[in-house]
Amino acid sequence: MKSTQIRLASRPVGVPAEADFDTVEVSLPDPGEGQLLLRVIYLSLDPYMRGRMSAARSYADPVDVGAVLVGGTVCEVLESSDPKFAAGDIVLSYSGWQTHDVADARGIRRLDSATTPISTALGVLGMPGFTAYAGLLEIGRPKPGETVVVAAATGPVGSAVGQIAKIKGARAVGIAGGADKCRALTEEFGFDAAVDHRAPDFVDQLKAGVPDGIDVYFENVGGPVSDAVAKRLNRFARIPVCGLVSGYNATAAPEGPDLLPDFLRRVLTQSLTVRGFIQDEFVPAQHQNFVREMTGWVADGSVRYREDVVAGLDSAPGAFRGLLAGHNFGKLIVQVSDDPTS
Amino acid sequence: MKSTQIRLASRPVGVPAEADFDTVEVSLPDPGEGQLLLRVIYLSLDPYMRGRMSAARSYADPVDVGAVLVGGTVCEVLESSDPKFAAGDIVLSYSGWQTHDVADARGIRRLDSATTPISTALGVLGMPGFTAYAGLLEIGRPKPGETVVVAAATGPVGSAVGQIAKIKGARAVGIAGGADKCRALTEEFGFDAAVDHRAPDFVDQLKAGVPDGIDVYFENVGGPVSDAVAKRLNRFARIPVCGLVSGYNATAAPEGPDLLPDFLRRVLTQSLTVRGFIQDEFVPAQHQNFVREMTGWVADGSVRYREDVVAGLDSAPGAFRGLLAGHNFGKLIVQVSDDPTS
Repeated sequence: MKSTQIRLASRPVGVPAEADFDTVEVSLPDPGEGQLLLRVIYLSLDPYMRGRMSAARSYADPVDVGAVLVGGTVCEVLESSDPKFAAGDIVLSYSGWQTHDVADARGIRRLDSATTPISTALGVLGMPGFTAYAGLLEIGRPKPGETVVVAAATGPVGSAVGQIAKIKGARAVGIAGGADKCRALTEEFGFDAAVDHRAPDFVDQLKAGVPDGIDVYFENVGGPVSDAVAKRLNRFARIPVCGLVSGYNATAAPEGPDLLPDFLRRVLTQSLTVRGFIQDEFVPAQHQNFVREMTGWVADGSVRYREDVVAGLDSAPGAFRGLLAGHNFGKLIVQVSDDPTS
Repeated sequence: MKSTQIRLASRPVGVPAEADFDTVEVSLPDPGEGQLLLRVIYLSLDPYMRGRMSAARSYADPVDVGAVLVGGTVCEVLESSDPKFAAGDIVLSYSGWQTHDVADARGIRRLDSATTPISTALGVLGMPGFTAYAGLLEIGRPKPGETVVVAAATGPVGSAVGQIAKIKGARAVGIAGGADKCRALTEEFGFDAAVDHRAPDFVDQLKAGVPDGIDVYFENVGGPVSDAVAKRLNRFARIPVCGLVSGYNATAAPEGPDLLPDFLRRVLTQSLTVRGFIQDEFVPAQHQNFVREMTGWVADGSVRYREDVVAGLDSAPGAFRGLLAGHNFGKLIVQVSDDPTS
């Protein structure tokens, strides 16, 4: 079986360029004992992938230059040498940017295509949804009546954060770029207020949106948006930090002034909690609860989701660049091949 | 009764100047029902007072221009109109920078001069000791074998942090300025290693002092010391933030580059917890435990303390400036009048 793969040709400096990606076709080996041959249907594109393209130390090893880019995938099993899987099964795997894969059955999970669309395993019911659930509930811990703010709020993490905050009785305020996304926040996702970070009066909009200040700021963007939010944090506010997408393409520390001393002064005088996390940390304790609760919330309509599906593996590099610039509208997914369940 | 008072003459810009302080003599009223007339024996000087001299919003109201500067004090009761106190009692009060005070008995605590020197109520058994105890144990939570780093380590907070860390089975590394202070850290306070932040090879000393990285950084200074520490933090490290003395005299954000994005990147990739706190927060739950445990540790010699006592209220402004510059060696206390217990 052949697989078309997109590999890391060189480590991007700043915004990833076309030349940083290489498309090759390879022949896959036959699946060995305990292995599966997979056809990739959906590939997830997520901001964390930018970190893996760099050599810098992070919470996971970088992708080697010349290796296939990593990513979560929903696949159909074409051949199985493992008794727990059969041809035709739909599974969640980590096959990366390619059309086919031979992978160990261990670590692969069968999806139930009858209850929810299989693509949701990459978004609202997958890693981004769990990031929102665990970060908000384990670190943010919103109390009824408190105000929760999240940026990139129409994205898969942000939209789940706001909706779970509402379920917990908090006021949800979303920050997004542009009028269309802001409209979706209040009309589609049920946020109490939406703030457009591209509007000239962004700071005033934010102030008006959080009349009682901010008790939880779910940090996934960093940069000027976060600087504005920091000024409105209440005493004992909690800041789960799950991403800093605004800086992922940065090549050097930005020019001054140095905002770190002022940030730490706020941490001190407001008794803030700032807590970075990677969702893996909470998997053992919370993943089962997440699947149960989130599936229920999606089923009863209290959590909605939006997907932004682009067609064809060859569109992945461009779509990924757009993701870092905020051009997507909802969970960004590449449809690599036909979805037999839809 | 007359009281000599040091009042805030003007809000300091940068380093407090002589002209920012005013010395006046006033006649105190007679103590009314439920009040005490106090003679100040010891006045505590602490870095937080710099914040109160500024108009900026903080966790406590600023001192008004023209008002007596605030501060913890150990006093002798001269007259009492409250049945719970009698002339001759030694008490802890918040009388501030003055020689005498008329104060409500409520909020004043009698000290037992038989067990420990009464000055310790301002240091190791007082607010600084409790700051160390609560911040380290409630936020830092060092586990046996972990590495705890603290700066200003010969000060009343830092020296207690290191010694409590040792009691809990952790490795204690202190940062201080100059060879004398560093020698005291290992020889007097029992730290495992001392690092001189004034030495040209500070960064190398720090690296050598924490071969297994840093699990708890008790933040009380900020600035370049903290920037160097941040690079050696382990995954899941905790950073209780109780002070940022290196920046208290700053008049504007320092020049760039902007270190905030890099700091937040570390928070994210290392799953750090950064938590500001004021010790008041932990008083209800922990103060009784603190008094019991710390008194025991001081009595059995497992916690030592050092005091830097300057004579005369008029030396307070100069001593306070020295405190912000790190010139003191141990808990800085002004002896305002004779100590009848020593």
